[in-house]
Amino acid sequence: MTSINTHEIDIVKAKTSKIDSVDFENLTFGNVFTDHMLVCDYKDGAWEKPIIKPYEHFMIDPSAKVFHYGQAIFEGMKAYKDENDEVWLFRPDQNMERFNKSAVRMAMPEVPEHIFMDGLKTIVDLERNWVKKGIGNTLYLRPFMIAVGSGVIAQPSTQYRFMIILSPAKSYYQGEVKVIIAEHYSRAANGGIGAAKAAGNYSAQFYPQKLAQEKGFQQIIWTDDATHTKLEEAGTMNVFFKINDTLYTAPTSERILDGVTRKSIIDLAKSEGIKIEVRSVLVDELVAAAKDGSLKEIFGAGTAAVVSPIVGFQYKEHYYELPKIENSTALQLKDKLTKIQYKLADDKFGWTVKV
Amino acid sequence: MTSINTHEIDIVKAKTSKIDSVDFENLTFGNVFTDHMLVCDYKDGAWEKPIIKPYEHFMIDPSAKVFHYGQAIFEGMKAYKDENDEVWLFRPDQNMERFNKSAVRMAMPEVPEHIFMDGLKTIVDLERNWVKKGIGNTLYLRPFMIAVGSGVIAQPSTQYRFMIILSPAKSYYQGEVKVIIAEHYSRAANGGIGAAKAAGNYSAQFYPQKLAQEKGFQQIIWTDDATHTKLEEAGTMNVFFKINDTLYTAPTSERILDGVTRKSIIDLAKSEGIKIEVRSVLVDELVAAAKDGSLKEIFGAGTAAVVSPIVGFQYKEHYYELPKIENSTALQLKDKLTKIQYKLADDKFGWTVKV
Repeated sequence: MTSINTHEIDIVKAKTSKIDSVDFENLTFGNVFTDHMLVCDYKDGAWEKPIIKPYEHFMIDPSAKVFHYGQAIFEGMKAYKDENDEVWLFRPDQNMERFNKSAVRMAMPEVPEHIFMDGLKTIVDLERNWVKKGIGNTLYLRPFMIAVGSGVIAQPSTQYRFMIILSPAKSYYQGEVKVIIAEHYSRAANGGIGAAKAAGNYSAQFYPQKLAQEKGFQQIIWTDDATHTKLEEAGTMNVFFKINDTLYTAPTSERILDGVTRKSIIDLAKSEGIKIEVRSVLVDELVAAAKDGSLKEIFGAGTAAVVSPIVGFQYKEHYYELPKIENSTALQLKDKLTKIQYKLADDKFGWTVKV
Repeated sequence: MTSINTHEIDIVKAKTSKIDSVDFENLTFGNVFTDHMLVCDYKDGAWEKPIIKPYEHFMIDPSAKVFHYGQAIFEGMKAYKDENDEVWLFRPDQNMERFNKSAVRMAMPEVPEHIFMDGLKTIVDLERNWVKKGIGNTLYLRPFMIAVGSGVIAQPSTQYRFMIILSPAKSYYQGEVKVIIAEHYSRAANGGIGAAKAAGNYSAQFYPQKLAQEKGFQQIIWTDDATHTKLEEAGTMNVFFKINDTLYTAPTSERILDGVTRKSIIDLAKSEGIKIEVRSVLVDELVAAAKDGSLKEIFGAGTAAVVSPIVGFQYKEHYYELPKIENSTALQLKDKLTKIQYKLADDKFGWTVKV
């Protein structure tokens, strides 16, 4: 177990656990939370001592800046249990690094490692019974930070709250995912906050997402807002395209999130000898590849679904169906990645971290 | 007094008022709140009965969607007291309409008139002692809505809270306002949420704003994110340029907020015989006008500052100082507008609404 300065974190345990009331076979994603949460407040230019305490509602001022100006960031991560009942995190350093990049972009204080990482390990350790064995079972970890300072003037807060809440999850099969390519709406601006896991980026997608669903599409593939010619992300995931025998995914940028699953997929593909190119894919190129049969696969990659294969896409009122492929690259890569996460395969990348 | 269905709003009065403890001569904007707030919850597809009750902190779930996905919108408005102690609102219908447009864009329920407007009038009436006489004294009104439903899945909430909080304000003189024209950062994407008063739009500006302030500029003039060639907004205000004897301001769009002060300024200018054109102004055009002396004025327009004259702008490391003008168009228009708001001039537009 990596060293944890538990003397730096106060722990107040819940008197009883609600774990026995939870139906782990029928979980809705992100809906049930464990017995405890971590809370750490920032005031007067400094982080206070973190506390782990029973999960509960908390008091907040109606004028808190998070309500008015959306000053809030988060991360999404998972803990996995192996066959020997050991609990593992997957590349948590990457999430911490991205969290603090998001903090800088949103004019919020960075969260130091002894609070983010030690706090995470300590609370996951405390809640290890909530991490169930078996591929697909995970404990979803949600570190987040909100501006709790009061006052309705559009300026950064001087007070923040960093929290970690934990939610048990089953792997979810979404059914067949059909996507529509965005011709009007966008998720990010050049020089905007698209690369940050900032709260406001997500609600901005709800309305276009609703319109897409009404048309029968589960997700939107976002394009660049200036020209709508470059393919960028799929819903809240990064997106990969397989044309002939090569995988393509867009480079990260100010508009595209630096996804941990994305970068792991890239490394895995390389080590498996799968051809991969990191470059922008144009909508026209995708349409041409769909027409001439060279488009083999499209899939999303993200922490929640890991890899999400897409069966077809709509563009300018025309629907392009993808070929049905046995043993797709998407599922091969998902399998490789999952086996590393659950310690069923050698972790030659050094991605897993024991709790 | 416009009809108010007070039987539709529960009122629980504060036992004591804190008004005597407030120094009305030395107010910081948006920092002090009145004795009461309005709260109205949305559940199971319907708005509940609004309640006006003592201003207080409230309980919320750490997994509330407003914290994670920034699903939150607001309005900024003011109440004014005339010489006869009557209290007035300024074009509240425009704020209500924009609020509900923001709600649609953010996949939130619209707030019906009997809650937004009657709620606003009822609480302002109750707090009328907080509206002080004299030009510049106002009660700043902040209607807002937040997603309070729980769950860390990126989907619209099913539960919302609409609130109105009120903050007494003095007119504020910001000192000389120098601006820098954005060459890299942006506030809005094509097909994004820039036209909505969505919380996330504001925190997205905090970091670029901080960088500008470090360079000695109080505000940023935002440009279009695709090309950075078109002038769009100034900080959180709409922006006007006077070149020769004509005022220019950009048309509203998906990237530009439909400001109430902006549209009132346009109407006032027209009625005063001031030439005004609603069209995009290019950065190059502004620079050329500054160089040849035809650029006379730049000013921001918004609810908080009303009209905010700008003394100069920086672009590509070069600072352009504006001529000092006696009796500027900015201040003429501010004076006209203010006199209507305080009932010192005939309101031929029918903009003022008695509480």
